[in-house]
Amino acid sequence: MSEQIDWYAIRDRAKEWILDAGEQLKEALKSTLQVETKSSPDDLVTNMDRQIEEFFIQHIRESFPGHYIISEEGYGDKLSELKGIIWMIDPIDGTMNFVHQKRHFSISIGVYENGVGRVGLILDVMNGDLYHCVKGSGAFQNDSKLPPLTETSLNEAVISINATWLNQNRRIDPDIVRPIARQCRGTRSYGSAAIELAYVACGALDLYWSMRLAPWDIGAGLILVEEVGGAATRVDGSPINLLKQNSLLVGNPSVHQTVSNHIQQEIESGKFVEQYE
Amino acid sequence: MSEQIDWYAIRDRAKEWILDAGEQLKEALKSTLQVETKSSPDDLVTNMDRQIEEFFIQHIRESFPGHYIISEEGYGDKLSELKGIIWMIDPIDGTMNFVHQKRHFSISIGVYENGVGRVGLILDVMNGDLYHCVKGSGAFQNDSKLPPLTETSLNEAVISINATWLNQNRRIDPDIVRPIARQCRGTRSYGSAAIELAYVACGALDLYWSMRLAPWDIGAGLILVEEVGGAATRVDGSPINLLKQNSLLVGNPSVHQTVSNHIQQEIESGKFVEQYE
Repeated sequence: MSEQIDWYAIRDRAKEWILDAGEQLKEALKSTLQVETKSSPDDLVTNMDRQIEEFFIQHIRESFPGHYIISEEGYGDKLSELKGIIWMIDPIDGTMNFVHQKRHFSISIGVYENGVGRVGLILDVMNGDLYHCVKGSGAFQNDSKLPPLTETSLNEAVISINATWLNQNRRIDPDIVRPIARQCRGTRSYGSAAIELAYVACGALDLYWSMRLAPWDIGAGLILVEEVGGAATRVDGSPINLLKQNSLLVGNPSVHQTVSNHIQQEIESGKFVEQYE
Repeated sequence: MSEQIDWYAIRDRAKEWILDAGEQLKEALKSTLQVETKSSPDDLVTNMDRQIEEFFIQHIRESFPGHYIISEEGYGDKLSELKGIIWMIDPIDGTMNFVHQKRHFSISIGVYENGVGRVGLILDVMNGDLYHCVKGSGAFQNDSKLPPLTETSLNEAVISINATWLNQNRRIDPDIVRPIARQCRGTRSYGSAAIELAYVACGALDLYWSMRLAPWDIGAGLILVEEVGGAATRVDGSPINLLKQNSLLVGNPSVHQTVSNHIQQEIESGKFVEQYE
């Protein structure tokens, strides 16, 4: 199947659409957004999340009628397996940033074939940085090819982890997280998983750790990170399942290994980490 | 004294210099940086911190011979009072970001007259955003005037706080910080106090909370935040002293009030917050 598919052509169409969608989002920030909450007061959605998702779905359906779509606002397909070609779309990753900050939000597009990542694009809309890749030909930030990740120790690592996971929460014992935050060189938190994954790919972050992410949050970023030799698992060490929610530990392989070993020891000593299906 | 001084002319000179310095930093990122550590393994300094500081000092001495300078790398003046006109200069705010991320660092210039903030400029070097103000005529992001901050509740607030202060540390009982991180809408952390203060001024953050900052980190940002009606105190509620290190709680006045009240109650109940001179 793969022989017949021109992934570069798919990347080029996706690139055209993502840049167009980025312009629509920038334009939308000049007028008033319609903001609603979804599952919780902190889970925001706007008219633009829906509009951009529909924009992508319409284009994909027209250009690639045999392809499937998994997308945040639910206008895509309901899939129970990763067979065929699947587009994982987050029309606005970091909706809270979009609403509150008018910056630090992104659009994420990952294209998978039978579960294998083929094409990834993440657009940091406001500063215009486009991270993109076609599996096997390297990852790029705009026109610059990103170098492979190099070995780094935890005490020289900058890691992204939200304060939520250092606080009491229902997904992980914070006593597992706190020593890592103390031992690393510095912690950051940006509020867009796709941007954080792009930062891992370009070495601006050595690790990104989160306890709950959807396939569309991470579909593109995982392909980018893989292209530069990064490591990605769930926080408990198990493999990521792109049909489900996941926890995520992704980064430079040496830092990923160090933190992963620490978490394994903590799990063995009886501390709690949420297990996903 | 103030009648004779053209603060707009000072802002224009400072603007010229800060943009020039920004170009020097962007250029420097193309070659190898010389990185050393200062007080701790996480306290970095580069050849460029020194070069940019000397660049500013030379220009200020030439153009404004009667003015004083307080600056991070120590090439300025040793002052024991805030008399006269003082430039507070951070040549690279967020040196760790400069070294590790090649983004999210800034240059900060605040000009004070007898302790009163007159001119503030913060340049987010890599994305080119310049935040600037002259006291009494509003704050700007590039050419856009920033609106006054509006009332926000804590549960709708996005606040910037580093994971350090939710962890065991020697400056604050983390049990004071954790409930605030839980109650707000979301937390972020960017690793450049000046950028975080600029974000408070433009409403991208509703609060910034840090336990230890130097005058050059906050000199410019405090003037910007004041121009849009923000509130700023030390974390224990005492006034900021620009000749010393300070803790800092700065933000939207309603969110600042809510968090400040919470901290006061915690101090009264016996919890620890570092007191500065």
